[in-house]
Amino acid sequence: MSQPIITLITDFGSADHYVAAMKGVILGITPRARIVDITHDVAPFAIAQGAYLLAQTYAHFPKHSIHVAVVDPGVGSERRAIALEAAGQTFIGPDNGIFSFITSREKHKARLITNEKYFHHPVSRTFHGRDIFAPSAAHLAAGASFSSLGKRIRDFVTLDLSAPQVLHTDHFGNIITNLRAADLETHASLTIAGVAITEKAENYAQMQQGKLYLIEGSSGYLEISMHQASAAGKIAAAAGMPVEIKSQPRSRKPVTKAE
Amino acid sequence: MSQPIITLITDFGSADHYVAAMKGVILGITPRARIVDITHDVAPFAIAQGAYLLAQTYAHFPKHSIHVAVVDPGVGSERRAIALEAAGQTFIGPDNGIFSFITSREKHKARLITNEKYFHHPVSRTFHGRDIFAPSAAHLAAGASFSSLGKRIRDFVTLDLSAPQVLHTDHFGNIITNLRAADLETHASLTIAGVAITEKAENYAQMQQGKLYLIEGSSGYLEISMHQASAAGKIAAAAGMPVEIKSQPRSRKPVTKAE
Amino acid sequence: MSQPIITLITDFGSADHYVAAMKGVILGITPRARIVDITHDVAPFAIAQGAYLLAQTYAHFPKHSIHVAVVDPGVGSERRAIALEAAGQTFIGPDNGIFSFITSREKHKARLITNEKYFHHPVSRTFHGRDIFAPSAAHLAAGASFSSLGKRIRDFVTLDLSAPQVLHTDHFGNIITNLRAADLETHASLTIAGVAITEKAENYAQMQQGKLYLIEGSSGYLEISMHQASAAGKIAAAAGMPVEIKSQPRSRKPVTKAE
Repeated sequence: MSQPIITLITDFGSADHYVAAMKGVILGITPRARIVDITHDVAPFAIAQGAYLLAQTYAHFPKHSIHVAVVDPGVGSERRAIALEAAGQTFIGPDNGIFSFITSREKHKARLITNEKYFHHPVSRTFHGRDIFAPSAAHLAAGASFSSLGKRIRDFVTLDLSAPQVLHTDHFGNIITNLRAADLETHASLTIAGVAITEKAENYAQMQQGKLYLIEGSSGYLEISMHQASAAGKIAAAAGMPVEIKSQPRSRKPVTKAE
Repeated sequence: MSQPIITLITDFGSADHYVAAMKGVILGITPRARIVDITHDVAPFAIAQGAYLLAQTYAHFPKHSIHVAVVDPGVGSERRAIALEAAGQTFIGPDNGIFSFITSREKHKARLITNEKYFHHPVSRTFHGRDIFAPSAAHLAAGASFSSLGKRIRDFVTLDLSAPQVLHTDHFGNIITNLRAADLETHASLTIAGVAITEKAENYAQMQQGKLYLIEGSSGYLEISMHQASAAGKIAAAAGMPVEIKSQPRSRKPVTKAE
Repeated sequence: MSQPIITLITDFGSADHYVAAMKGVILGITPRARIVDITHDVAPFAIAQGAYLLAQTYAHFPKHSIHVAVVDPGVGSERRAIALEAAGQTFIGPDNGIFSFITSREKHKARLITNEKYFHHPVSRTFHGRDIFAPSAAHLAAGASFSSLGKRIRDFVTLDLSAPQVLHTDHFGNIITNLRAADLETHASLTIAGVAITEKAENYAQMQQGKLYLIEGSSGYLEISMHQASAAGKIAAAAGMPVEIKSQPRSRKPVTKAE
């Protein structure tokens, strides 16, 4: 590909020089790389949130895209650097579970990143985004082989996201859960932070002001939303909170399961 | 053009994956597109503010640029998707008035966007930025004709911005009105939120600390500013507030009109 | 170079149209320019902070990169516009000290920017980022010679950053000083805002929760950090605060100087 795509997702914010330093390093190695920011506003050290946001994005990018994910509280410790091949794309980052959604969904191959020829020297103890992850991605974009990064591994860290929970609350205050519409019986409700949400909507325009609704979000997950207002603000929901599913029959007759 | 320019302006913020999903969809269709962010920090659902910010930007971009504007409280309802050709450029977004400044200033042709061949499928009910607007723009950038988007229309929604008002308050606290310098007599003052501003300045360095000044901003509109301080903070001004023009003679003699 | 790199660092924020207007002007002059944001979140008018952030970034970019720095409280006054050649790169901005780290570190040549052929007309009194700095950079990227910008100068404004001080507090709450690790004796401590910091760490994982540590940051400067918490929040440190170095012997025997 003439203009390889490298995306960046970090918890670095956008007020410092950190993201730009990564971009400079990439462009120094691969001047034709196209760099796309996913976001740099993952909450500091919030690995699961970064994992969710990356999971919502990568499938929209073309084959051969390289995604660099740096939410990395363990930088400088013994935590490993890893790379994945999955879904025809490559993923680069710390071995702390940030690729959990991808490895649970997609066929994948994992390797350690240990090839110091690709690193930016001297390697700092606190900024592997600049010194290890970005330059390794740039060398892949320039044509280096996946296998040249380091040895094949089959053990890597994954997050346990099986329990129903809040994955993220977005800019509009939508509360995104890890449940699918099909997980919910027709008359069941979700309970978050003690508040039960029963009403369902198909789009925001259907919603009455001031009420909470269940809606199938653009991600395919069940979300809790309000009409032009913040559901997350109303019920003080935050990433990581548990979600409870309650059967809630409308009559005393047994509820018929949705197909 | 070898590298078509697509700009994005939304109220999506930059902490979620929404903007990146749009970029991925665009690059999947038109790998050579150059994507430029105008801003993603339009206040949620603030159509008039988005309209103003787009109006201040498009004229600085080259001919053939394609601008995608998504401030879209009516997503999923019956509101239509439209495209405009104006000023040698193309504009893509919801039919809710976000192009009002452009249609009032520039010769234009409008079309509906209904050609599902260009959409990202399945089309969600809540994220037309990703599923309709971004991919339609990308297909135009790849060479699709404007007329292939959908049928010609002459009716579209416009905002009424004729009354003197605050259009926007910026990062520095400058209060931007929809008045031109020529709208103001020599000795007239503007009143916003009960505060009359009479003093005029030609640049920030001329201003005394702590005082409010009228200044012709870089947009050509009259702005209210302070020396290294926030005028919007001082008088609690916000987008949409009415602005009153008052004649304010300096003597009892009749004021001579400015030429 | 086929795709010249132009970086932007400003205090414009990202909620307005200002940065996008600069990008539009650049792409109108040099359609192949690759524009990279360093940050637009320099604190308003904070020249020293902008100078620090630029100083941490430029060396990671390839030769021939052009850096446009606009933290410009004196816009529209008599302050001059200047350009520097240093480190094989070019720097464009107001003559207010924003290039102080670069001129103190690198061999350099300075010129005034007075060639109105390169400006965006009409030149506003309040937005030289769009009207002077961005288009001058774009003309250089398109092949204009450095000497065509204006006459050679040897006098330009520099900031006095010799006193030990806080340069910046970052997104994670790390407090970045202008001291090097070598500036500190083995048993010496730093005092900021009345708080002495003595403990040293080599990476974040070594740190105990709740304690302040001295660490050599990725910039090479001494920083004060905490384990997954904000050091700047804990001791209310801010850019510009003085830093005191205190000898702090662990015993009554004289301290041996570190090599």
